[in-house]
Amino acid sequence: MNIHAASTDSRVPPENNRLLRALLRQPVDATPVWAMRQAGRYLPEYRKVRERAGSFMQLCMTPELACEVTLQPLRRFRLDAAILFSDILTVPDAMGLGLRMNDGEGPQFERPLRTAADVGRLAVPDPEDRLRYVLDAVRLVRRELAGSAPLIGFAGSPWTLATYMVEGGSSKEYARVKGMMFQDAVTMHRLLDINARAVTMYLNAQIDAGAQAVMVFDTWGGVLTPRDYREFSLRYMRQVVAGLKRESDGRRVPVILFTKAGGSWLEDLAASGCDAVGVDWTTDMAEARKRVAGRVALQGNMDPSILYASPGRIRQEVQIILDSYGPGPGHVFNLGHGVHQQTDPDRLGIMVDAVHELSAKFHSPAGAAAPIQSG
Amino acid sequence: MNIHAASTDSRVPPENNRLLRALLRQPVDATPVWAMRQAGRYLPEYRKVRERAGSFMQLCMTPELACEVTLQPLRRFRLDAAILFSDILTVPDAMGLGLRMNDGEGPQFERPLRTAADVGRLAVPDPEDRLRYVLDAVRLVRRELAGSAPLIGFAGSPWTLATYMVEGGSSKEYARVKGMMFQDAVTMHRLLDINARAVTMYLNAQIDAGAQAVMVFDTWGGVLTPRDYREFSLRYMRQVVAGLKRESDGRRVPVILFTKAGGSWLEDLAASGCDAVGVDWTTDMAEARKRVAGRVALQGNMDPSILYASPGRIRQEVQIILDSYGPGPGHVFNLGHGVHQQTDPDRLGIMVDAVHELSAKFHSPAGAAAPIQSG
Repeated sequence: MNIHAASTDSRVPPENNRLLRALLRQPVDATPVWAMRQAGRYLPEYRKVRERAGSFMQLCMTPELACEVTLQPLRRFRLDAAILFSDILTVPDAMGLGLRMNDGEGPQFERPLRTAADVGRLAVPDPEDRLRYVLDAVRLVRRELAGSAPLIGFAGSPWTLATYMVEGGSSKEYARVKGMMFQDAVTMHRLLDINARAVTMYLNAQIDAGAQAVMVFDTWGGVLTPRDYREFSLRYMRQVVAGLKRESDGRRVPVILFTKAGGSWLEDLAASGCDAVGVDWTTDMAEARKRVAGRVALQGNMDPSILYASPGRIRQEVQIILDSYGPGPGHVFNLGHGVHQQTDPDRLGIMVDAVHELSAKFHSPAGAAAPIQSG
Repeated sequence: MNIHAASTDSRVPPENNRLLRALLRQPVDATPVWAMRQAGRYLPEYRKVRERAGSFMQLCMTPELACEVTLQPLRRFRLDAAILFSDILTVPDAMGLGLRMNDGEGPQFERPLRTAADVGRLAVPDPEDRLRYVLDAVRLVRRELAGSAPLIGFAGSPWTLATYMVEGGSSKEYARVKGMMFQDAVTMHRLLDINARAVTMYLNAQIDAGAQAVMVFDTWGGVLTPRDYREFSLRYMRQVVAGLKRESDGRRVPVILFTKAGGSWLEDLAASGCDAVGVDWTTDMAEARKRVAGRVALQGNMDPSILYASPGRIRQEVQIILDSYGPGPGHVFNLGHGVHQQTDPDRLGIMVDAVHELSAKFHSPAGAAAPIQSG
């Protein structure tokens, strides 16, 4: 699919609102599908642009290039959403921590937060100033999409950002950030509050710039005890949700929360005020649906490793997940985590097509015709 | 505590059977406590022996040195169990995969399994031949302990071993092993069956050599979907459990199963035929106890990162976990994962003493007096 030709393709409605409708649990004609990290290194056309940009951060910071790689997967696959190409660590970078993305080594901050004084010096960055490059990319992508698919904006959760900010990069044991949490909870709460305010402003700026749904990635909430999760991660996601603009251009802007490995806390997430909850593959969709009891939509949850399997096996797994969710609205098909770098792009296309084809029986063709209800 | 002086210490009974009693849900005078990786790099005396041995594998393969490091933590702390110092990857090494342990890099196999033919060449190793060094260490440790604490033997789960055998080492995304699982389930089942038979023979040999309880570490079962977990991990742990000698010297030999990040599957683990289930810190002990409904004992579940906190905070967390489990038998206190390398050893001592002191109210002093019932 070339997105510019979308309106001439009879299989894609001129304005594709499946995603937004499903996130608000409204009827659709087919289950919408997109994939976390659908724009990225598994695509050869991405690697070309990445090389041209010189560095990952340069790619993020050049709106034309960020827009280009955001749109690339929509040219290949019949995806029901675009997600802005960016990184959750742009926010701490805008706070002055100095982000470096080294190939193969993962992200590193030049000035990680190690003491209460480090945290005391932090301020909430004005996104229109320090993160304007992201907002320019949002405006550009939105214009290029021209309604062919909605655009999802995103940010990291306050806790997940804190893990990188305190550790200085990725971590296996979270010794430093948990050390701060257990030894000096006051400082940790101060940091999380700053992060929550920064993420709220940043997502609201993305909504103002044209993001039609927003997602909060809580990649590392799952490394906490249930009590610590509620106190240090969920609480600050609730703060973010409470501060978001939920309407733009007269339309509801759905909010998706995703705690990786957070299957135990679905009820808490469903009660957080969000519209939809992301689910990874370690929880059955049927069980997840039962537990959230119609309060929110669900997004997920195929193991990205299934994309190493044969086309037949991929279709079979799509079927299993669709059947597990069952009939009725409120399901957005996705992977349970980002597309792996080694994935053959064609396999993702097989997944996308299978979702549309195999989900039709759960929906009515008239599903997409009704206007989106607001609020 | 010097283990050789244990019988003169009035706070430790001459024969300390708290662990075995608790694993069989029999009354105890205090909640028993030990820690995964209680023998290891966080102890300076371990690092000395490790240096003397030359390499990690040389340490594992020299029974006198393996015995020495097994006993080290029991000289420092009032632990209720010794766990054999060894590594789960000795079994695939005995199968001919060629294990190398490089400091800082993690384990690597010289001959990983990549094809059905690779798997076809595998055979179940005779532990008395290829793993005699482990059994000699078990015999030595058991003699040295002289009843002051029981000895736990262990092995990796068939699935967890398979991840290392196929990936060739540690992994983040499990692309290769899941690739094999999804593309060629027949070969994967063949591999898991061989692993299950190897683990069963190996644990039975450890029991014959003197191990008084055995534990199966399923470190990576939690990366699977619920369906794949049951088919590829739990099923083969059940096979192991079904093949184990459950009595030795007229005493019941308890079996502990631990799937890291397996909190969703506690009911399945409890129904597997084992005596006890390990729980990591992402599940509340109260909830875990309710869900296993008296079918098994529970072991866990403090976040090892709490050991970075102050003594007061550590005691507080011990109290929370003991209270969460509540009164009555069937709880073995442990961390939810291994002791981190950077841990201050004194902090582990604080945890151990706090467990004994703070758990007394949940037990009766006469608890330890009654003989262990067999079967």
